[in-house]
Order: sequence, then structure tokens, then C-alpha cells
Amino acid sequence: MTREDDCLFCKIVAGDIPSEIVYEDDRVLAFKDISPMMPVHVLVIPKEHYSSIDADIAPEDASALMEAVSKVAHDQGIAESGYRVITNVGDDACQSVHHLHLHVLGGEKMNDGDPSVR
Amino acid sequence: MTREDDCLFCKIVAGDIPSEIVYEDDRVLAFKDISPMMPVHVLVIPKEHYSSIDADIAPEDASALMEAVSKVAHDQGIAESGYRVITNVGDDACQSVHHLHLHVLGGEKMNDGDPSVR
Repeated sequence: MTREDDCLFCKIVAGDIPSEIVYEDDRVLAFKDISPMMPVHVLVIPKEHYSSIDADIAPEDASALMEAVSKVAHDQGIAESGYRVITNVGDDACQSVHHLHLHVLGGEKMNDGDPSVR
Repeated sequence: MTREDDCLFCKIVAGDIPSEIVYEDDRVLAFKDISPMMPVHVLVIPKEHYSSIDADIAPEDASALMEAVSKVAHDQGIAESGYRVITNVGDDACQSVHHLHLHVLGGEKMNDGDPSVR
């Protein structure tokens, strides 16, 4: 497992920084966003360090991430009502942590206007 | 390849409805959104019909989709400046076409507020 010493999410994966974990398997960790923008706001991340979705992601991690998103949505009770999945890359998208993370958002009606999440 | 007769994106994959294709491989098609919300707004879809990311997605398709997102971003010139990837599931997220599609958005500075895209 590649780990970046100065990466916040690598530290969460390692357990060095606490988080409210809602799902975990060999490749993926999911935990609640500390500043939720919606009633449900979970971050789904690969345990392996990738800077973003723009990195060269192992096929097994890509698959595990998508599967975990669905599991989290069902566990959080938003699979039926609906949810949005967002990931940001770089400055224009305000990527704040440079470890690939998928925002899973739900629990209320969203609009279909300008797309944004940090 | 599973195809749904009444699915807009299956018809685009089949070539029955024209689209401005920007990338294609065995598993994935990417084309310009007909109502772009940003300077770059491409939809990346699996050729296989899945209703959303909540479906049981073949690992090969999950991996191919993520790889295609990165390729499209580089081809469209937004990999350095940054981009946002969004997919919607169900009513709360205003999912409009029930064939899994990843919005790839970029070309201008986004905010980090309320997340939304149709």
C-alpha cells in the first residue's frame, strides 16, 4: 500500500487520525465528511494513495470504489431516494485533499444547476 | 452488450442518434453534452446498459470508465486546470437519463458550494 506521509486521508486510512467510518473493505474506506453539505455526505476513498481520479488507478481499486459507493448509499438509506457522486481534480474544481475521494451526497432534493462541491 | 430499446444513450451507442463523440473504446463512449453547463462538458458512459452507478457494474467497465475520464480530460485540455466528475442516481439527484453517465466538467473555475448537476 502506497502511503504519502503528509496526506490527511492516508493518515485516516492508517488510523492516525480518527474518522467516523461507515464502510471498510480491503481496498476502500468510507467515512463521514466532517463538514457535511447534505444530510448524508460520505467520502469513499481507496486505501491506496492516488492523487485524484486522474491518476493511473488499478482496475481492482476502480471497481472496488464503484461497488463501495453503492453499498454506502444503501447502508445510508439514500439508494431509493437518490444520490449524487462527485470527485474533484485540481484547482478549477477546488480539490482540497489530494487523495482520490468520491463525495456521496443525499438525503434531500438537489437541484440541477451549477455543479459544485469542494 | 445489453441494450434497452427505450434508452437514449443506448441509441447513441448504437449510432441511431447522432452525438459529438470525443472518445471511444470497446467498453466506453464519450460525447459532448448537448446542453453544456461549462466550457467543457462531456458525458462518459459505458456501452453496456446500467441504470446508474448503483447497478451491479462489471469490474472491467468500472475500470474502463475511470480510465476514460482521465483520457477525456487530457484530450479536452482540462487535466492541468482541473475538472469535476459527477454522476447522479435517482430523483433526489435529478437523474435525467437512466443509463449510467459521468459528467466531466471543466474549463472554468468552479465554486465549492452546493453540489448539483442534472
